[in-house]
Amino acid sequence: MNPLSSTARTRLRRHPERSSADRTVLYDILDAGMICHLGVIVNGAPLVLPTGYGRLEDTLYVHGSTGASSLMAGPSQDVCVTVTHLDGIVLARSVFHHSINYRSAVIYGTPRPITDTEAKLIGLQAITEQMAPGQWEVAREPTRKELAAVAVLAIPLSEASVKVRQGPPNDDEPDHALDVWAGVLPVQQTFGHPSPDPLLRPGIPVPRHIARRVTS
Amino acid sequence: MNPLSSTARTRLRRHPERSSADRTVLYDILDAGMICHLGVIVNGAPLVLPTGYGRLEDTLYVHGSTGASSLMAGPSQDVCVTVTHLDGIVLARSVFHHSINYRSAVIYGTPRPITDTEAKLIGLQAITEQMAPGQWEVAREPTRKELAAVAVLAIPLSEASVKVRQGPPNDDEPDHALDVWAGVLPVQQTFGHPSPDPLLRPGIPVPRHIARRVTS
Repeated sequence: MNPLSSTARTRLRRHPERSSADRTVLYDILDAGMICHLGVIVNGAPLVLPTGYGRLEDTLYVHGSTGASSLMAGPSQDVCVTVTHLDGIVLARSVFHHSINYRSAVIYGTPRPITDTEAKLIGLQAITEQMAPGQWEVAREPTRKELAAVAVLAIPLSEASVKVRQGPPNDDEPDHALDVWAGVLPVQQTFGHPSPDPLLRPGIPVPRHIARRVTS
Repeated sequence: MNPLSSTARTRLRRHPERSSADRTVLYDILDAGMICHLGVIVNGAPLVLPTGYGRLEDTLYVHGSTGASSLMAGPSQDVCVTVTHLDGIVLARSVFHHSINYRSAVIYGTPRPITDTEAKLIGLQAITEQMAPGQWEVAREPTRKELAAVAVLAIPLSEASVKVRQGPPNDDEPDHALDVWAGVLPVQQTFGHPSPDPLLRPGIPVPRHIARRVTS
């Protein structure tokens, strides 16, 4: 795969050792996530909203209501899409070296609205499968009316920053003598036991593709 | 406490029933988080970065390197700070009604750089305690030089949108007859067992304020 392009804004000036131009690292971070934070400019001010997304090859899909003008601010509006995994709290001997272990992908691009029905379904499938793998096959597909109410945007995965910090704290050497515990408190995102809709018809068990996600 | 001010951008046009002007709901969402997504405008385009934050009364603090021009884009630059908790994947009988259960706070404001040393320490303490409660008391406090390398910004908690979605899917009534499981897959953020720094001096146990966060 071709590496990510290096542009002024994707080059990390701080901690360049944490960056990666490797496309597989970008894809791994995106594929492991469930929501992104989408940044747009509305009336000259930044707006950051959590939303679902999906990836298919080198395209990222996001969706929104066709009525949500903030997200559909018009063609050729730059957006920024950020996906972050918090992996640990880095507890150092000094306040200054406290940090977080994380993996993040910051994607810059100009979204292209998808209007073709077939292409829109492909984008929606990617978004649905990202947060609920296996559901596209079992759930009722969108009607023509439902499809018209959803805007799907495609963002090319060509300009992105990938940043990863893992490992123990980086305390200054003299601080190692301090009588302070140092290390990492791991953070994970885990799934609990599925809670059925109170309106669920009796006799429908939790399907395997959902049950197998349960962590505990 | 005074309610949050209602402005054009904090009024939800979509799903207004999910909004809250209750300041305690805002504070609960912020206090339960560890990282935020900070949106700024850099060279006319949005930039969204994950970072730590802290809250003290009606002020939100964020910090960054004084060298990170993107975050310290200058005075009177509007920012947007978003904190999101993903609580569940809402699995519906139809693709269209898939959703997420979440709590989010979107804060708009113009950050004020904190330059006074005492005030800066208060902001840093709020940020440190947000992700690592109890650490400010045990870790070595910043030196004058370390303090100079950190920029601390204060954002007033006056203009914010709070949005909460909880509960089962909202499938259309005719879809209730479908032979498809529906419900919620809960999502939590959990803490694993602390992993000591390989350079940790022998004989320093994991302190109680860290050990008690472990989920399993």
